[in-house]
Amino acid sequence: MLAFLLTFVLLLLGGVAYSGGYPVSEATQTCIECHSEVTPGIVADWRASLHARITPEAALKKDKLSREISSSNIPNDLKKVVVGCAECHTLNPKLHKDTFEHNGFKVHVVVTPKDCAVCHSVEAKQYEKNLMSHAYANLMNNPVYHGLLDSVDGLQSFDGKRLIYSKADVHTMADSCLYCHGTKVEVKGFVSRETSMGEMKFPVLSGWPNNGVGRINPDGSMGSCASCHPRHSFSIAVARKPATCAECHKGPDVPAYKVYVVSKHGNIYYSEHSNWNFKHVPWVLGKDFKAPTCAACHASLLVDEYGNVIAERTHQMNDRIPYRIFGLIYAHPHPKSADTTIIKNKAGLPLPTKLTGEPVSKFLISPAEIEKRRKRMEKVCMACHSTGWVEGQFARFEKTIKFSNDMTLAATKILLKAWEKGAAKGLDKGDSIFNEAIEKMWVEQWLFYANSVRFASAMAGADYGAFANGRWYLSKNLQKMLDWLSFKLGGKK
Amino acid sequence: MLAFLLTFVLLLLGGVAYSGGYPVSEATQTCIECHSEVTPGIVADWRASLHARITPEAALKKDKLSREISSSNIPNDLKKVVVGCAECHTLNPKLHKDTFEHNGFKVHVVVTPKDCAVCHSVEAKQYEKNLMSHAYANLMNNPVYHGLLDSVDGLQSFDGKRLIYSKADVHTMADSCLYCHGTKVEVKGFVSRETSMGEMKFPVLSGWPNNGVGRINPDGSMGSCASCHPRHSFSIAVARKPATCAECHKGPDVPAYKVYVVSKHGNIYYSEHSNWNFKHVPWVLGKDFKAPTCAACHASLLVDEYGNVIAERTHQMNDRIPYRIFGLIYAHPHPKSADTTIIKNKAGLPLPTKLTGEPVSKFLISPAEIEKRRKRMEKVCMACHSTGWVEGQFARFEKTIKFSNDMTLAATKILLKAWEKGAAKGLDKGDSIFNEAIEKMWVEQWLFYANSVRFASAMAGADYGAFANGRWYLSKNLQKMLDWLSFKLGGKK
Amino acid sequence: MLAFLLTFVLLLLGGVAYSGGYPVSEATQTCIECHSEVTPGIVADWRASLHARITPEAALKKDKLSREISSSNIPNDLKKVVVGCAECHTLNPKLHKDTFEHNGFKVHVVVTPKDCAVCHSVEAKQYEKNLMSHAYANLMNNPVYHGLLDSVDGLQSFDGKRLIYSKADVHTMADSCLYCHGTKVEVKGFVSRETSMGEMKFPVLSGWPNNGVGRINPDGSMGSCASCHPRHSFSIAVARKPATCAECHKGPDVPAYKVYVVSKHGNIYYSEHSNWNFKHVPWVLGKDFKAPTCAACHASLLVDEYGNVIAERTHQMNDRIPYRIFGLIYAHPHPKSADTTIIKNKAGLPLPTKLTGEPVSKFLISPAEIEKRRKRMEKVCMACHSTGWVEGQFARFEKTIKFSNDMTLAATKILLKAWEKGAAKGLDKGDSIFNEAIEKMWVEQWLFYANSVRFASAMAGADYGAFANGRWYLSKNLQKMLDWLSFKLGGKK
Repeated sequence: MLAFLLTFVLLLLGGVAYSGGYPVSEATQTCIECHSEVTPGIVADWRASLHARITPEAALKKDKLSREISSSNIPNDLKKVVVGCAECHTLNPKLHKDTFEHNGFKVHVVVTPKDCAVCHSVEAKQYEKNLMSHAYANLMNNPVYHGLLDSVDGLQSFDGKRLIYSKADVHTMADSCLYCHGTKVEVKGFVSRETSMGEMKFPVLSGWPNNGVGRINPDGSMGSCASCHPRHSFSIAVARKPATCAECHKGPDVPAYKVYVVSKHGNIYYSEHSNWNFKHVPWVLGKDFKAPTCAACHASLLVDEYGNVIAERTHQMNDRIPYRIFGLIYAHPHPKSADTTIIKNKAGLPLPTKLTGEPVSKFLISPAEIEKRRKRMEKVCMACHSTGWVEGQFARFEKTIKFSNDMTLAATKILLKAWEKGAAKGLDKGDSIFNEAIEKMWVEQWLFYANSVRFASAMAGADYGAFANGRWYLSKNLQKMLDWLSFKLGGKK
Repeated sequence: MLAFLLTFVLLLLGGVAYSGGYPVSEATQTCIECHSEVTPGIVADWRASLHARITPEAALKKDKLSREISSSNIPNDLKKVVVGCAECHTLNPKLHKDTFEHNGFKVHVVVTPKDCAVCHSVEAKQYEKNLMSHAYANLMNNPVYHGLLDSVDGLQSFDGKRLIYSKADVHTMADSCLYCHGTKVEVKGFVSRETSMGEMKFPVLSGWPNNGVGRINPDGSMGSCASCHPRHSFSIAVARKPATCAECHKGPDVPAYKVYVVSKHGNIYYSEHSNWNFKHVPWVLGKDFKAPTCAACHASLLVDEYGNVIAERTHQMNDRIPYRIFGLIYAHPHPKSADTTIIKNKAGLPLPTKLTGEPVSKFLISPAEIEKRRKRMEKVCMACHSTGWVEGQFARFEKTIKFSNDMTLAATKILLKAWEKGAAKGLDKGDSIFNEAIEKMWVEQWLFYANSVRFASAMAGADYGAFANGRWYLSKNLQKMLDWLSFKLGGKK
Repeated sequence: MLAFLLTFVLLLLGGVAYSGGYPVSEATQTCIECHSEVTPGIVADWRASLHARITPEAALKKDKLSREISSSNIPNDLKKVVVGCAECHTLNPKLHKDTFEHNGFKVHVVVTPKDCAVCHSVEAKQYEKNLMSHAYANLMNNPVYHGLLDSVDGLQSFDGKRLIYSKADVHTMADSCLYCHGTKVEVKGFVSRETSMGEMKFPVLSGWPNNGVGRINPDGSMGSCASCHPRHSFSIAVARKPATCAECHKGPDVPAYKVYVVSKHGNIYYSEHSNWNFKHVPWVLGKDFKAPTCAACHASLLVDEYGNVIAERTHQMNDRIPYRIFGLIYAHPHPKSADTTIIKNKAGLPLPTKLTGEPVSKFLISPAEIEKRRKRMEKVCMACHSTGWVEGQFARFEKTIKFSNDMTLAATKILLKAWEKGAAKGLDKGDSIFNEAIEKMWVEQWLFYANSVRFASAMAGADYGAFANGRWYLSKNLQKMLDWLSFKLGGKK
């Protein structure tokens, strides 16, 4: 505490103190007084952040392109101090079910997009239209996808004859699927703890910790801005780097990051990025960076060195993406709504295509919207590439979407035959479609291999289109499925 | 355009203007005038490059070791200006079938090794002897390898009983194997496009875009210097970094980069390289860098801090490599010619070994040449390691070549038995040797696991020699092949 | 040599010369005189190291927290010169069986933890209690684990009916398992070599080169400090970076590094670490670094910016780890002794648990010790995270340990049934438990998938808990094992 006072000299002026020249609210000073000793890491992290060195008032004075703040009606008491602990953790105390009394303040643990929206309202609004914000419900409330989750996360035991599946428990889901999709964070009660500052009461949260993109928060909001802007620096630089996206987009189901690494863009990024400027707003193409990162193509505001806008900032990640190549089960035009639980195909399944691949158009974006999004992405490409180059790239990509869908269809047909012949039990028998060997092979056909091939094409990292979970496996897996069926049927076909 | 004039003040002196003190040809100025707005990214990239800041004349004045240019007879009009857009994109217009009229210039789209050879003739010559420059034909014109390609890239459908294979189509190959091997780029016609500068005519190219190492160019040349020196900075620093090689040498078939990452060299590189100098020519071992990258061992001119040459620069990548450990099907001494389509084994197959592993010596380098190349590599090793260390390393490596070849042979013998017993249809039946389950397992034995084990040994990254696609799989796969055969034969052996 | 004299001006003062202001022993000067030309890379590496720029005497004068040296009784002749070639390579010549006469010095090749202990005695002592230091014997002298090694590294041949396994040979083991575990380095004789300095005699070493963590050295000691502090800079900065640990902790058996990369900690590290200070001692959390690396959580001395100690430095890597989640075969409390060959379970097998999972408590740490270690780790977590966060993380982790052990048990039960039914030959038949298909699937269940799931939980990188060798495979593999058994038994169950 003494140490704190020595290093952080404050000059009190009507509830505001100045730290290193920046106005800090009295409330935040109180937080820091203890927390610089209790949780020194995050206090230090925050101190080095932009939040600690600019007031919303000053931020609003920047010219439109340079501004990182988008709300115009920021409350006066927040406007004139830097964004410290109290500014976020004490906002709207009644809304947050995890609010608790803490040294005279009504503090909540889980800061949410609703809190961030006070200053970043445009981004928060865009994010609501982002599929990611619905990642919890889109998985948990879709019976087909939830069935897949149970087949992955459910405990199994062997009774001497059969494998007995259990439903997935909350801890296991939080350690697996919901790590990225987001957990449901709920207040389960309050607990007293002996701390270095005496006995204190804290809320007990289920589904905590979690930073998933579709986290259900105690204030009812969805998502976590810290998924990509990690606490407590909330840096735009971090969000622009591919390691951020890699946290959830690297696995065999969605190998976007891996594809990027072996693309020419990734090659240049990994060779050169230490000389680039990841903090500059707006992001000047060719000057601040020389090859795109995930953010450059999918989210960032990009300008050329004369200030011409090449792409507007968006936090709706499919704003520049016409097709949803993360095939569940087939690639298809993007859903219209971020809430995909409303989708039903002809067979009544909550899937954006039929089991044989035809898209369920009424829930998906129109050809005109496809064209619009494609044009937005092409404009980014064309900042460095000629029209011929970009057209060639897209022609190839669309061919690959068709190729990978067709290879999925071949697998589906083998599966349907297995169900028909009784070699496995499927939809018609009311059984899970994910619990038998051939069903798991079928899942890998689309979830691993077809996805891999499409990401490889979209971002031009061909390893994942060839031997690294790519076409080699698409092809081999079909043969494996057929062999399994043949062994199962005892050689009879 | 106005913006351009403001930031890029030119002083015209007889067709040459000065930009930031550097002489830029009038033609290049014209290009930049529009392209700094049309494709700002690449113009900015070029501006920061060495090409934009040195004339060939000045480059030739450097001492021999520091020189990055190797031609002595550079035309006078090129000598006195920096290497800009027009210097490369308007060279030899008649040779390039993709040449088109563009604002009064005869421009070609695809810059090729023949263009680069004007200043970098020695490197271009060496590259012609590089297996990589023949990567297109070596794959496409070898019926065995092309058969493998078709089994990977060919679309399959299921007719209710069998899988029907199609031949691979051009888009799919370009998104898969030919991404690295290179496509055949051909002019398919010309197209008019409405542009921000009015209507313009452009060539339509097949196989475009592509940066593959053996690309067949519209001027008849093979390869793309931009594979490793990416446009439009053409940086030597990028080519020296392992992320460049990773683009094509990371997959399970050729995991060189992955092995490097888990080697001690990779450990040091990833921990320390931000303090190293990747631009300095010649590359001073111990001073400019402390652990080798791919380029250091295989390509770069290396000197010690007194200027003693440790290794000469080479663009023939096997110049310091005696054995071709990328086993197709077995590891063997390197082929004499970069064109491997000329090779025939005793059985008439276009393979450098017999199906049972014996090398077809007359097409492969001699023991004396093996020794010479090994010595070149050892000299690099010995700049940091003692003789005993290096001998130990090579003894182990040669043992591993034998081990992996023997494990491949065991797999081949199981396959031959499967063919003999009619469990699968192979060469004797005129059938593809890549389309059945056991054949695919056999391919993985050499293409994935044996290759992995050898790269792991060569570069001392043992993960890939043990559990990461290494010996664990070499061993397990043999058992899988045998089980498959036994199931297929219904328990009969 | 002349060059050397020019760049390295020496002022001789009673056996000590000054190079760049630092006192270098006469012996080391003599080494450098030749080796700056013979092995320029390592001399340059050393010159830039801390060893070359500080004497033990000066190092001892630093305050306790800043000190990187821990011995108090350093011999006087070593105290007053920097730590050069001779200081390490000529220590205790009689102890080292690889000592040889070299230009008038008694030099040994293999510098060992006993040599380093002269100045770093505390670290060397701690390392002796590190499981890693026993990695050679713990593998080679445990018949079960050695059986696994033989099944991986042993050459196989196919005799037309069966696969014939050979024992693993030394070269193959050194290229595989023993690369990380360490080889046994023994003097096999001496050899004369023609060198640029004339004919010279050198020892011939088996198991060389090697940097494995449990290397058996010619002086009888175990381990290699250069595993993590690579020669010849021996940098603390390198040891603190995750690329160092990745060399041996990245494979599918122990994917700690891969998990780190996709964790939030890894995200921040890869996005921000180029701005951090990896050299500062003690390591100031929040200031020198903002997200932990492997070393931060498991080894480093950590303080906050007021100098409060958060964690003491340790070279016993499980000092802050209660559970051994590298399950062989099940996760369990850490062994008491670093020598695990002394462990016997009830069935007499050298395993820390029964085949059905119960830990063999008498060889494992007590609940009190578990609690103590957990508290040490929690203190590190709590420097940035709240108590609720940390408790949630640990509750989840312990659930995952149980989950993964239960999924391993299910696999074991299927295996036991296969043995019982005669579908495979196991322990009861005196056969290897690693050589049949179902046994290899069983190994993957714990060695790859259960391990992956646990590391993913411990370090919060959920990709490896879900689809990347995680729960998807835990689940699918059980089904595969059961299918194999069913096919093998011809449909009979």
